[in-house]
Amino acid sequence: METEKEEGLVYAGSTDLALEANEIAAKRMGGAVPGVLTETQEDGGVKVTFMEVQNREAAQSIGKLPGHYITFEVLGLRNKDSDLQDQVATLFAQKFADFLKKIGIGKDAKVLIIGLGNWNVTADALGPIVVENIMVTRHFFQLMPDHVSPGYRQVSAVAPGVLGTTGIESSEIVQGIVDRSKPDLVIAIDALASRSIDRVNTTIQVADTGIHPGSGIGNKRKGLTKEILGVPVIAIGVPTVVYASTIVNNCIDLMIEHFKQETDRTDKIFGLLDGLEENDRLQLVKEVLNPVGHDLLVTPKEIDQFIEDIANIIASGLNAALHEAVDMNNVAAYTH
Amino acid sequence: METEKEEGLVYAGSTDLALEANEIAAKRMGGAVPGVLTETQEDGGVKVTFMEVQNREAAQSIGKLPGHYITFEVLGLRNKDSDLQDQVATLFAQKFADFLKKIGIGKDAKVLIIGLGNWNVTADALGPIVVENIMVTRHFFQLMPDHVSPGYRQVSAVAPGVLGTTGIESSEIVQGIVDRSKPDLVIAIDALASRSIDRVNTTIQVADTGIHPGSGIGNKRKGLTKEILGVPVIAIGVPTVVYASTIVNNCIDLMIEHFKQETDRTDKIFGLLDGLEENDRLQLVKEVLNPVGHDLLVTPKEIDQFIEDIANIIASGLNAALHEAVDMNNVAAYTH
Amino acid sequence: METEKEEGLVYAGSTDLALEANEIAAKRMGGAVPGVLTETQEDGGVKVTFMEVQNREAAQSIGKLPGHYITFEVLGLRNKDSDLQDQVATLFAQKFADFLKKIGIGKDAKVLIIGLGNWNVTADALGPIVVENIMVTRHFFQLMPDHVSPGYRQVSAVAPGVLGTTGIESSEIVQGIVDRSKPDLVIAIDALASRSIDRVNTTIQVADTGIHPGSGIGNKRKGLTKEILGVPVIAIGVPTVVYASTIVNNCIDLMIEHFKQETDRTDKIFGLLDGLEENDRLQLVKEVLNPVGHDLLVTPKEIDQFIEDIANIIASGLNAALHEAVDMNNVAAYTH
Amino acid sequence: METEKEEGLVYAGSTDLALEANEIAAKRMGGAVPGVLTETQEDGGVKVTFMEVQNREAAQSIGKLPGHYITFEVLGLRNKDSDLQDQVATLFAQKFADFLKKIGIGKDAKVLIIGLGNWNVTADALGPIVVENIMVTRHFFQLMPDHVSPGYRQVSAVAPGVLGTTGIESSEIVQGIVDRSKPDLVIAIDALASRSIDRVNTTIQVADTGIHPGSGIGNKRKGLTKEILGVPVIAIGVPTVVYASTIVNNCIDLMIEHFKQETDRTDKIFGLLDGLEENDRLQLVKEVLNPVGHDLLVTPKEIDQFIEDIANIIASGLNAALHEAVDMNNVAAYTH
Repeated sequence: METEKEEGLVYAGSTDLALEANEIAAKRMGGAVPGVLTETQEDGGVKVTFMEVQNREAAQSIGKLPGHYITFEVLGLRNKDSDLQDQVATLFAQKFADFLKKIGIGKDAKVLIIGLGNWNVTADALGPIVVENIMVTRHFFQLMPDHVSPGYRQVSAVAPGVLGTTGIESSEIVQGIVDRSKPDLVIAIDALASRSIDRVNTTIQVADTGIHPGSGIGNKRKGLTKEILGVPVIAIGVPTVVYASTIVNNCIDLMIEHFKQETDRTDKIFGLLDGLEENDRLQLVKEVLNPVGHDLLVTPKEIDQFIEDIANIIASGLNAALHEAVDMNNVAAYTH
Repeated sequence: METEKEEGLVYAGSTDLALEANEIAAKRMGGAVPGVLTETQEDGGVKVTFMEVQNREAAQSIGKLPGHYITFEVLGLRNKDSDLQDQVATLFAQKFADFLKKIGIGKDAKVLIIGLGNWNVTADALGPIVVENIMVTRHFFQLMPDHVSPGYRQVSAVAPGVLGTTGIESSEIVQGIVDRSKPDLVIAIDALASRSIDRVNTTIQVADTGIHPGSGIGNKRKGLTKEILGVPVIAIGVPTVVYASTIVNNCIDLMIEHFKQETDRTDKIFGLLDGLEENDRLQLVKEVLNPVGHDLLVTPKEIDQFIEDIANIIASGLNAALHEAVDMNNVAAYTH
Repeated sequence: METEKEEGLVYAGSTDLALEANEIAAKRMGGAVPGVLTETQEDGGVKVTFMEVQNREAAQSIGKLPGHYITFEVLGLRNKDSDLQDQVATLFAQKFADFLKKIGIGKDAKVLIIGLGNWNVTADALGPIVVENIMVTRHFFQLMPDHVSPGYRQVSAVAPGVLGTTGIESSEIVQGIVDRSKPDLVIAIDALASRSIDRVNTTIQVADTGIHPGSGIGNKRKGLTKEILGVPVIAIGVPTVVYASTIVNNCIDLMIEHFKQETDRTDKIFGLLDGLEENDRLQLVKEVLNPVGHDLLVTPKEIDQFIEDIANIIASGLNAALHEAVDMNNVAAYTH
Repeated sequence: METEKEEGLVYAGSTDLALEANEIAAKRMGGAVPGVLTETQEDGGVKVTFMEVQNREAAQSIGKLPGHYITFEVLGLRNKDSDLQDQVATLFAQKFADFLKKIGIGKDAKVLIIGLGNWNVTADALGPIVVENIMVTRHFFQLMPDHVSPGYRQVSAVAPGVLGTTGIESSEIVQGIVDRSKPDLVIAIDALASRSIDRVNTTIQVADTGIHPGSGIGNKRKGLTKEILGVPVIAIGVPTVVYASTIVNNCIDLMIEHFKQETDRTDKIFGLLDGLEENDRLQLVKEVLNPVGHDLLVTPKEIDQFIEDIANIIASGLNAALHEAVDMNNVAAYTH
């Protein structure tokens, strides 16, 4: 379980997604969480939720840091539908550009994009593949500043690798690069473990809170935050894997829901399972699976194609959002 | 659910592994299945089971075709242990060579190796990767028969692709290649869907029954069998994916087992779930997951490394088993 | 040097490109070669030449088989210009559709696309990469013929591998597949060795003469022709490699040309080299390089990107030319 | 042409290899260059040359920095001979370990390995592939210092990407990483442009002089040297590409040599070419090729396999040289 510390606060989140954390808290508190603002737009199978965690009390209630969040939910992303992908890329570009404005990032702010994760593990390769499709421009500004067309800003992009293959914490590598290249903003892309099987490969979360230790697929021990790097950090996360125990727990939920439609005595059908709190039930499932080594992190068989598709959405979205000269309505033309 | 027809028999198997089918039948029948011979050897974390389904009655009891089967079970294969991998490759080579003798395949029999599956889907790429590491020799026999060293036989190897990317059933492509290249034996390698999460990436099955429609990850509508190809067909299968519903069902099993150690009233804890037959329970799980699109085929996050490792084991094992000139004790040296 | 036999004729061509063969013959004969018709269109950096070799005499004069040829010459293809690539893909689609009409291939003719070459050798991977981007439809016609939208025809696509990795001649594999899948037309894509460094990665040749032994990068010993396969064969070839000796010979040519502009006594500068016939000089270069193992086949450092780009042009062009339902003006949208 | 500046000296080298630079200077000076010590060992197709450039005068004479150099020359590396590769890896490990001793690097010195070059350009991917096969251990020392077995030292490894894809000079990225991770030694691996076609894929150079601007395939503008990074830098370079003009020039040389055996009047055959200084002739060739865009950097067609092979040699050699616990006689077992 992930634990976040900041200024003395301790957050214990069972999910990487602020959206879910808010729902859980609202359920528990029997109504909207004070200090958490949300707004949802839905159009043609694409749901976008804006969320602001306004203060430390709200943060403590939902177990997420104060800040701004956008979540894109698109079930159809699993279906290899290239028209839908183009539509999501365009929407992502627009909302991301608005997000930059809202959090006060100027048009000339120099941006460093960090692709976290491991090239050689498909489900963890999202960050490196996004980096590969980013339109980098910083070197043109450095080498021939007078010849850069208007409508571009300084963008650089690095995939720092993972601890297991470099021997160095990725946050240390990023700190070194930030010290030398002096960006005004860091955008970090990472694959996440999902708390729910229906999130896998369908959800993109943007947050201005940075990346915190223990989040993402790899076991990071240090984060990428404004406190550490000295510049604001936007995190873009996509759930790509899920624990076997999560699948089991989700399914028991679904089964109980299913039978509730037929009987009000689901306890007869599910015995004790019916009465357990969700977290307690998950704990039980983990206790059973762990000793036999079966609480594996799994990913859908189609992960190769999906990672490619969603990396293209994010990369083309970023290219259009960061460079005014890139056409917002034809964002996909700039990646391959 | 897979359905196999042969000479009027109808087999309905819920598993691709004969070993499991036999266990299930034995449990149901309350004792060893008549006409099914098994023998197990275990050494240093590697379990090898030989099985013979001797007649049609036995075949019908367990839902598997008459024939010979070997199953290698190595839980440690998930641990990236290269010494263990070398050990398994050597053992595989020896047992495979014995298997060829037992089913009457001569030392000069010409062999065509078929790597079923899809290059671009990591969990389904086992067959193509094995093919890439096979020591092919047929062309030397064809082009310069007088210059081939003793200790080699004619081996060729093809990855025919999958229906979705070629537009042609892989069995049709293989038939065409067999017609033209006239091997005496076909060995087909395929990735399988597992009936149990603990099989994924830990089990290799060898069988002289060929590949049957509906087996493997892809939806094959035609098989690769002696009846179709005119030459014996050995199938080598490795479970690499598992349905979400299978994980859930496995886990409920484990939970019930777990509580049986504490109480004999597991029905109190699990309600109706406790009393259900395993197949009925699986059916229930599927009915709940399917409508929401969550009965996904999933694979462990580490699949990239695993597929590479097990493909090397099979390829080096085959190279040593098929060519006497290849050193049985250093089989891994011949692949990269 | 490649040698083609057909119906008793023997052709000795020093080039895979009919265009070049014709130029050489015309130069030698001091005028247009009788029986060879050519027509050239040029627009925006793209040059398209149509050629018909009308009879056996003409064929013998230029060392190329009777038939129809189109050559696309685009120097800019080396420059990673995606607008130009889209333009070439569209033009390729239109000219290829016209070509099919001219040689009598109907709208419903079933097409099998063969990607010759080796996945693992970048400069030889053109065919397999094209195959991967082809829109295959044959299986829909086979499995659900009533549900195929109008505007599509039956297309299948296979990459048969190379002799060194399969142990089987690719032509044998293709024959087997043709026997079983019964297409009306075969289109074979292959990477070629170039006779001139300026052809590498800039030229696409289409011909209805099939693929002949010894052409392409691999040493094919059997061809893919109508005589062998029983159906017409269109060959699409792209020069991707060049012999070191060819580079040297090209350069000596250029040097002599260069000095001709300054003096009419180039023999003073180049001695005997100046007077040698081109073929004799090439022979001399080869005699010097071969013994020291330096007459390597080489390819530009940028080959990875180029192969990707030109494979996309050919695949999108074929998709649009073969399926009326694919928009001719937006061909690139259908590949990734 | 590469220009190196150091402490007021200006070196103008036409080659990245010190060995060649020394030969050229010795030829020009009509005897051994004062202040340059060389020693050659040859065994079974493998030639190893040790060289020390002892002072600034010697450095100026040959155009290479003062320091220690080892060059491995193995023509057979082009032949896919895995026994030879193992032999070279073992030899490389031994000589590299000696080299560390000679230049005063202790057994516990912490090492950072930098793989320069571009993942996506096969001929430039040597550095990144070596990095991928390095046994990194630094994180074990950081996270559980008490549990590291004896015989290992702290090793980390990073592939920093290239300017064109990151927007940041690789030397800036490396400086940042060195600042944060504080190694005692940097080893940088890079692919080089060769001055001679017979060097391509046959030669490995080790030097304790660091990497200098303009060397390697990419156009580096800043180097990796002790002056810049504050710790010693060992450079490992392998020529993988060659200019077309170099091939032409090499070949004219070979032709002139060839005819010298038959006549003493090669000027009759080669005219002015015969009398030109080598550099002037190369200049002439470049002047002719450049305007038509043909002075391409090229690489042998087999580059994919070669890069894989030589990266394995270097990675296994480094693993054995850096960790005493790795068996010097079975170095290849530790990479895949």
